[in-house]
Amino acid sequence: MKKRTILLIGKYKKVESDISRYKRNFFVLAIDNLLGIKSLKKHDLEKIEAIAFKGHTNFNFPIMKKFPSLKIISNFGVGYDTINVEDAKKLNILITFTPDILNDDVADMAIALYLGISRKLLDGYDWIKSGKWKSLGEMPLNRKVSGSKCGILGLGRIGFEIAKRLESFKTEIHYYSRTKKNVSSNWVYYENPVELCKNVDNLFIALKGGAATKGFVSKNFLKALGRNGILINISRGSVIDENSLLDVLEKKKIYGAGLDVFLEEPNINQRYLKLDNVFIQPHQASATIKTRQAMGDLQYQNIASYFENGKPLTVIPEMK
Amino acid sequence: MKKRTILLIGKYKKVESDISRYKRNFFVLAIDNLLGIKSLKKHDLEKIEAIAFKGHTNFNFPIMKKFPSLKIISNFGVGYDTINVEDAKKLNILITFTPDILNDDVADMAIALYLGISRKLLDGYDWIKSGKWKSLGEMPLNRKVSGSKCGILGLGRIGFEIAKRLESFKTEIHYYSRTKKNVSSNWVYYENPVELCKNVDNLFIALKGGAATKGFVSKNFLKALGRNGILINISRGSVIDENSLLDVLEKKKIYGAGLDVFLEEPNINQRYLKLDNVFIQPHQASATIKTRQAMGDLQYQNIASYFENGKPLTVIPEMK
Repeated sequence: MKKRTILLIGKYKKVESDISRYKRNFFVLAIDNLLGIKSLKKHDLEKIEAIAFKGHTNFNFPIMKKFPSLKIISNFGVGYDTINVEDAKKLNILITFTPDILNDDVADMAIALYLGISRKLLDGYDWIKSGKWKSLGEMPLNRKVSGSKCGILGLGRIGFEIAKRLESFKTEIHYYSRTKKNVSSNWVYYENPVELCKNVDNLFIALKGGAATKGFVSKNFLKALGRNGILINISRGSVIDENSLLDVLEKKKIYGAGLDVFLEEPNINQRYLKLDNVFIQPHQASATIKTRQAMGDLQYQNIASYFENGKPLTVIPEMK
Repeated sequence: MKKRTILLIGKYKKVESDISRYKRNFFVLAIDNLLGIKSLKKHDLEKIEAIAFKGHTNFNFPIMKKFPSLKIISNFGVGYDTINVEDAKKLNILITFTPDILNDDVADMAIALYLGISRKLLDGYDWIKSGKWKSLGEMPLNRKVSGSKCGILGLGRIGFEIAKRLESFKTEIHYYSRTKKNVSSNWVYYENPVELCKNVDNLFIALKGGAATKGFVSKNFLKALGRNGILINISRGSVIDENSLLDVLEKKKIYGAGLDVFLEEPNINQRYLKLDNVFIQPHQASATIKTRQAMGDLQYQNIASYFENGKPLTVIPEMK
């Protein structure tokens, strides 16, 4: 097999990318992020046929054009909202992603955030650490999780996994999705997402990111969720009107939020850090050793498979 | 109905004890803890026929003897290991408790601790707060939860609820109990608890407290659990040999622990506070508003019912 040139973009942890395997089969170039393209020589740019991409910055037409031989972008992750699909189509560049592998981890994180904000786990830890348990006795009471009404916005594979876990907490499941799904008849379907928000205690956002869902969860949703509502987001920060979310959190117009994702990452809005009604994590929903290893492996296999037989394993749905 | 004298012992939060209801039906005395008995006058002690008890200090023969008319101790909580049952029997004092009501909350807390230690939720929050997300990028990878092998020590009602929740995380369930239970045939039963520890990734302790289980989870259990094992305890601190647990945590001979209970509360061993492989909470598993309200209500009903018809609702099993 002809040895092709590939470019790794992104900061990969050791388990995420088996560099020696790449090197056995390809000529390998590597940069930390898209800005690093400047450091590549013209004749290298011209030789690159595949990119293994990990990142959350825009990968669009002007950047793609810099790689005249590029045939495939293999994305590390299930979300590829920063890669412009239409631009790639124009240039005949295939995009692959790593679906499903991380569903369990992301659903687990949704439950962790839900328990974290409801049961005030950070406050509980501080209650011990600060000596208040000793001086003041029991910590303030918090909010029961089991037996609640939960709503899922977006019942794709991750939304489904969240719902399955919630069921074991004796939860009523309500969901919004563009179409009614073939799921348990106990799960209540809503055509109108704001109606869903009105009818639940806790809202889980499991929508796909990208232009179509930008700011989808607007002020109206938050108002409908109401003073006793909890919002959990493990999808993309962009799906929420973040200013409105910060406003209702500051004014206690919702009960609280559990968030793994933000509009700007890692430079998140500093208003988050002053709130006592959020439970926040640094976009780590899929950050387990097992899962990242599997994601890195699939990212590699997509490229290897493309050059072996023209058939990458997991092409994005828009290109199937 | 004759107005009886009752004594409330414990620090009750407002939702936990409806004082005005007590006062409508009883003469009410109240003290914060057993030490407060000293402040009661002899003729008051002699009139007290019922005690509504909330606390974690020893309630035994010498103390019970101080109340010559005492007929019932109504415990706030499912654990009554600090009330000496044999002593109460000798004095013909009934003991009631508040079972089942808090099963869901305690099982929810077990899952919260499990997610907390596995997914490094405290580290995740610190990663944002300290600015490391911005300066260093992603946080270190952590440990996948779904698809693990979990063991439950003690498959009573709370252990069962934990197992049901774990199943939704695609977990293999193994359990130890004095007798094999009539549960899903997929759940693996062990007669030997150390064998159980050898065969699982994560161990959940849901044993009953008290003399019979004191130090039950010994060094051998921890050794069998091994370097990659996580231990979760939501039952009583006394069931673990705490020094051995602290030793293996300090020496990283187990992966970590999620703990809501400790041998000494609230003055927990300060060695816990230096560890980076624990996720700890201040005995707050049942501390939700809904559940504490229901516990307080049942505590009251046990007393009221006893004086109405001699039949309290939930007598402890040893006295049935």
